Amino acid sequence: MRKVEVCFSPELYDSYHDETAIVVAIDVFRATSAMCAAFEHGVSAMLPVMNVDEAKAYQKKGYLVAAERQGKRVEGFDIGNSPFDYMSDKTKNKEVVITTTNGTKAIVIGSKAHEVIVGSFLNITAVEKYLLASDRNVMLLCAGWRGRFNLEDSLFAGELVERLHRSNQFDELSDSAIAARHFHLEAEGNIEAYLEKSSHRRRLANLNLEKDIAFCLQKDYTAKVPKLQEDKFLRE
Amino acid sequence: MRKVEVCFSPELYDSYHDETAIVVAIDVFRATSAMCAAFEHGVSAMLPVMNVDEAKAYQKKGYLVAAERQGKRVEGFDIGNSPFDYMSDKTKNKEVVITTTNGTKAIVIGSKAHEVIVGSFLNITAVEKYLLASDRNVMLLCAGWRGRFNLEDSLFAGELVERLHRSNQFDELSDSAIAARHFHLEAEGNIEAYLEKSSHRRRLANLNLEKDIAFCLQKDYTAKVPKLQEDKFLRE
Repeated sequence: MRKVEVCFSPELYDSYHDETAIVVAIDVFRATSAMCAAFEHGVSAMLPVMNVDEAKAYQKKGYLVAAERQGKRVEGFDIGNSPFDYMSDKTKNKEVVITTTNGTKAIVIGSKAHEVIVGSFLNITAVEKYLLASDRNVMLLCAGWRGRFNLEDSLFAGELVERLHRSNQFDELSDSAIAARHFHLEAEGNIEAYLEKSSHRRRLANLNLEKDIAFCLQKDYTAKVPKLQEDKFLRE
Repeated sequence: MRKVEVCFSPELYDSYHDETAIVVAIDVFRATSAMCAAFEHGVSAMLPVMNVDEAKAYQKKGYLVAAERQGKRVEGFDIGNSPFDYMSDKTKNKEVVITTTNGTKAIVIGSKAHEVIVGSFLNITAVEKYLLASDRNVMLLCAGWRGRFNLEDSLFAGELVERLHRSNQFDELSDSAIAARHFHLEAEGNIEAYLEKSSHRRRLANLNLEKDIAFCLQKDYTAKVPKLQEDKFLRE
């Protein structure tokens, strides 16, 4: 039997750190959703980096670079972190370097663990199957918003906890996993309404990202499970 | 109008930091419950310190010192952090220096803000009234367990959010406040059963602290609201 834990912010990762675990990096709005969409649409690799300076260095070397801060594409970069940025020939069969406000931080921090995969509603069933086929502990690492707890990532984590819990493979749930699970059970079937009051949801609505939000809340858009290998995610 | 935020761990405090807010330090099992009980039973002052070395230094100067780590009284110290340690002549009219695994950390970290008060189920209605009588933002700072989210502190925070929300004085709830509130609403009336699976609850049960747990879950045992003044809490 094994355990599932939820870490509500990358800032708490050191308190939860389990180097034997599979880390699921979660940034529903929008980095990990965009990465799932990108692989579904034929991107060949994605290389997450922590900051804009690193991203600029790759850009100078000729890489295609995605950079987002505060919900907007950073000036001077080719693409942002909207899932729709990764659906054209511009990115198909290309390697993309990506830095975002919260999501890439979670990925880089989680890379200390045994394995990091990327989760979002877009690939939730594929992630569930991947975790059930393994025999490892699971750490759901929410990107949050600038270190803070956020609703969308914890609701996703809660749904994944519920699915893993139902499998009877996991006998130990952390307090955070218990909370996230109940939180999901309460919101189930009504997640859009539930998120109406979310601070990040409001932030994105102000940026006219309604289309992105609706896209990111779809389940099982893809069966891809991006998995970090050395420093990048490769197309399976 | 003003806002209420919940910070689920002292490790996240920098992400939430609002120096204009009243911070409510929360460590239900057991530091802030013990402090509420202590003032109800006539302790004259409590001086929170971060670590055992500081506590030892005070002990050498002749102070009465409480020290707890991992749920147990630290060897060589007079008292621990059970509420029942503060109900006799040993502590009455005395100043007590206190260090605990999680609770005193939350207090010391929160002391950067405008004001720090101590909250627990034992004084929940008094804390509610205190906050409603003020016009400041509110930050509910959960001590958690070694940096991690815990159920009991977040359930308490959720009940306080619900009470403040009902007053219509607070128009802005952080994502964490929304989550804690729904979490409380789900658990209401059944908190003991809900906490059965809590890791810290299990930890304390293993230490035969059932009596302490039942005590700490009582509401409105006292009307005292311990308030940090300079570096210590004084009897009102």
